[in-house]
Amino acid sequence: MPDEFLRVSRRALTAGIAASLMAGDALAQEPPPRDPLPSWRDGPAKRAIFTAIRRSVRDGTPDRVPPAERVAVFDNDGTLWVEQPLYTQFAFAIDRLKEMAARDPALLQRPILKAAVDGDMRAVMAGGERGLAEIIAVTHAGMSQAEFQRIVTQWLSTARHPRFNRPYTQLIYQPMLEVMRLLRREGFAVWIVTGGGQEFVRAFSAPTYAVPIDRVVGSVGKTEFRLGADRSSELFRLPEAEAVDDGPGKPVGIGRFIGQRPQIAFGNSDGDIEMLQYATTGRGARLGMFVHHDDAAREFAYDRDTHIGRLDRGLTLAPQWGWPLISMKNDWLRVFP
Amino acid sequence: MPDEFLRVSRRALTAGIAASLMAGDALAQEPPPRDPLPSWRDGPAKRAIFTAIRRSVRDGTPDRVPPAERVAVFDNDGTLWVEQPLYTQFAFAIDRLKEMAARDPALLQRPILKAAVDGDMRAVMAGGERGLAEIIAVTHAGMSQAEFQRIVTQWLSTARHPRFNRPYTQLIYQPMLEVMRLLRREGFAVWIVTGGGQEFVRAFSAPTYAVPIDRVVGSVGKTEFRLGADRSSELFRLPEAEAVDDGPGKPVGIGRFIGQRPQIAFGNSDGDIEMLQYATTGRGARLGMFVHHDDAAREFAYDRDTHIGRLDRGLTLAPQWGWPLISMKNDWLRVFP
Repeated sequence: MPDEFLRVSRRALTAGIAASLMAGDALAQEPPPRDPLPSWRDGPAKRAIFTAIRRSVRDGTPDRVPPAERVAVFDNDGTLWVEQPLYTQFAFAIDRLKEMAARDPALLQRPILKAAVDGDMRAVMAGGERGLAEIIAVTHAGMSQAEFQRIVTQWLSTARHPRFNRPYTQLIYQPMLEVMRLLRREGFAVWIVTGGGQEFVRAFSAPTYAVPIDRVVGSVGKTEFRLGADRSSELFRLPEAEAVDDGPGKPVGIGRFIGQRPQIAFGNSDGDIEMLQYATTGRGARLGMFVHHDDAAREFAYDRDTHIGRLDRGLTLAPQWGWPLISMKNDWLRVFP
Repeated sequence: MPDEFLRVSRRALTAGIAASLMAGDALAQEPPPRDPLPSWRDGPAKRAIFTAIRRSVRDGTPDRVPPAERVAVFDNDGTLWVEQPLYTQFAFAIDRLKEMAARDPALLQRPILKAAVDGDMRAVMAGGERGLAEIIAVTHAGMSQAEFQRIVTQWLSTARHPRFNRPYTQLIYQPMLEVMRLLRREGFAVWIVTGGGQEFVRAFSAPTYAVPIDRVVGSVGKTEFRLGADRSSELFRLPEAEAVDDGPGKPVGIGRFIGQRPQIAFGNSDGDIEMLQYATTGRGARLGMFVHHDDAAREFAYDRDTHIGRLDRGLTLAPQWGWPLISMKNDWLRVFP
């Protein structure tokens, strides 16, 4: 039965790939793979993905979505790459703070900054949101957008994850890359909708995920247009938040950037609940899924009881809303590329 | 000499079209036109457009911009469509206000709303920005994004311009459509960056300009994610401004949505100055242009002395910054499609 299902899926998907080839989709110009999701074990999660895509693209059915309206959204931290033991962007902030403090020791007179540099995460967490905002403001503002891009790119090229000892951009989930590629082949616009910093994620989204920078929606600080005396111009990053793209901020960001309701949404934490709710109401085939981190051996195991990427209310809502969980342990044949 | 130039341009451009055809650009799959800008009279404006594009796309030159980084931005009101005697969006607001007042006469107890319904534009203008904001809040908020889209689409299908007696979406500038099409063929991402409302322009950008809704940057009000008891969900429009995409707000919006500096920018008023400055600083071929409304016979003639779309400081800056003016009267063989 599963084999029969896969055969049918494969036929439908191959037909879709052929159609997109004829439509001139450059990304589809590799030979069609036999199984578009080779890193997924056959099971309800994989089947849910195939079913939603097939229903959305198959000609002559009421659920068919015209290509211009096919939209899929992905959270980043914990959905596309590792977020434990610390959000990557926060590891960046601490490294940058250390570098800044080496040049300007006066920074360490501010208790929260000293705690961060000393690795005293309890003190940092005790500072709450205000403390985190202070660290972000010091490390993420006071330069142009272009300069910030250069700083992040440089950091990503040298920093290593403390457990896996690999660059962070290699700690991405191969099965999710396959889903993104399949969706693109089937005509979906694939967006990242992250609670992380928009410019931070833009620094690696294109080479890492094949998601262009103008398809990254994230949290942003204010910027200011500045004109130099030499007639140069730049966008300068101010130490002030403008939009937080998390929780209900995610559908708001989707509305502002994408301008239409996605049909498919992937997340992994309570911050993605509203995005999944927004994507999975409305007519036609709709799919919301949580990546469930239940694989301590190959990655990490956490859900209701964690400081980063907590999946608590979401675990309760998932069966009520019909959101299949993706078990990292059981559904993924491999985790990293 | 101009003929020789055009011949060379045409060769280069045709080669570019062939290249983009091979790259699978669906939009380029019409037969290449002989002159990609047939509604433009040969002159410095037309030549400046050809030169900037040719320098940006020609292989093996230091100015060449990789296709993924080719970005062109267009203002909307007065650059792509008629903005006199009243911004189209404001005409929409007044019509909607009349309709709302017919159902709820209590609205007319608010002096600024009564003035707008009565067509007393002097009183409306005397109300300044606060008055305009009140009119916009009443007419543009209090419904979902989807409902607002429907209201605008419906209005656009019936409303007529007071002078030309044609639907507003037909009062677009044919020469600018040709520039947008040429840029797309040469691999540029074409964006609209408007001081007008983002959702308002999204209601017609795709069928009118072939600009998809996710390539429209504009002024926005706050929205709120709302979940219905029946598990429906929507983005609800609140009567509060969030971002004004005008003047220095234009490069800020470009940074937030596009995430990179455009090479080419078209505007028509002082509100576009910063956008042109942002686009025309930096390495490589760069082009900023103002549409100059100097054609009272076929459209309107106005620049320094007008309430809508004033081009005053911009007229002074244009020669200093090397921004060629587009004379509607002399450079355009025809105005509307």
